[in-house]
Amino acid sequence: MTMTKRDTYTPDSLLAVAVEVFIERGYDGTSMEHLSKAAGISKSSIYHHVRSKEELLRRAISRALDGLFGVLEEPGAVEGRAIERLEYVTRREAEVLMDELPYVTLLLRVRGNTDTERWAMERRREFDHEVADLLKQAAADGDLRDDVDIRLATRLLFGMINSIVEWYRPGRGGAASRDEVAEAVVRTAFAGLRKP
Amino acid sequence: MTMTKRDTYTPDSLLAVAVEVFIERGYDGTSMEHLSKAAGISKSSIYHHVRSKEELLRRAISRALDGLFGVLEEPGAVEGRAIERLEYVTRREAEVLMDELPYVTLLLRVRGNTDTERWAMERRREFDHEVADLLKQAAADGDLRDDVDIRLATRLLFGMINSIVEWYRPGRGGAASRDEVAEAVVRTAFAGLRKP
Repeated sequence: MTMTKRDTYTPDSLLAVAVEVFIERGYDGTSMEHLSKAAGISKSSIYHHVRSKEELLRRAISRALDGLFGVLEEPGAVEGRAIERLEYVTRREAEVLMDELPYVTLLLRVRGNTDTERWAMERRREFDHEVADLLKQAAADGDLRDDVDIRLATRLLFGMINSIVEWYRPGRGGAASRDEVAEAVVRTAFAGLRKP
Repeated sequence: MTMTKRDTYTPDSLLAVAVEVFIERGYDGTSMEHLSKAAGISKSSIYHHVRSKEELLRRAISRALDGLFGVLEEPGAVEGRAIERLEYVTRREAEVLMDELPYVTLLLRVRGNTDTERWAMERRREFDHEVADLLKQAAADGDLRDDVDIRLATRLLFGMINSIVEWYRPGRGGAASRDEVAEAVVRTAFAGLRKP
């Protein structure tokens, strides 16, 4: 028999539980039954908070996207030379990824079987285009090495940033801190991009 | 009714089909029924080739690991200064990843629920240690920038290489070729690692 507890969840705390289950089992492999067990409350209690599993996915993905797109509106991302803005955006994206680790992890694992997943993938593409535009502008300014292929460089830059979700665990003793990781990403990426 | 065809599979061609299904549905989410449908032959025909789903996983993972570990025994990986060997290994790993794309993709997605998956993760860790040792040796030789953190650098390097599985599709028109991708990875990574 499933142990149930009094439903003291807020929308945010229930979402946090759901995201952990989605990451562990995959979104497709997660049922309302799994969510009910993980949260320790009945399915009808969950339906009191949300209409569907897909609504939980949409909220989780929105949280990740709001964080990532929010960076593009910060002063450091809109003022100054493109290469400086690009460096600012790179550092802040790495930080948002670590601050919102489970939400961004879920966003990166989404594969596109439902409307919400397709929407998430479309928004990710938009985000990548915004960053690619910054790279193009930096190239036009003459600030990138001449041998940089914009499209490949964008992919490798995101590859490096996104890989953080595979190994970064906050507060693990002896491991690099959030700021050290962000700094290393910026240093590594820009040594390869910036004209010496 | 499932369409079945005469079983003309070789071990390799059946494995190729299974790997595509594992990647699409996840290993846990794949049943022998799914494999039978994808291959267009009966379950008992599949059992004629392999004893279990896990055997297919082990063969697929072995193929990826053999490719990756094989690089470490090539002359370019064992002769010369550590920084040169590291650069050679980086380029060849990127190439193996692209040449054996589905097999390495599967290896990178494995999460550790069965003995075979745990073995795969252990072998991946061994591989990462071998490359980290090369980085350490290059640092001891004085060939790395002074501000490089070996553990972080190893992770970012693999992050960049492994991200290739997310977007590289051979023969896609207008996209970068295998050799261009490998070259860009080496250039980007080593600009950030090598002492100027």
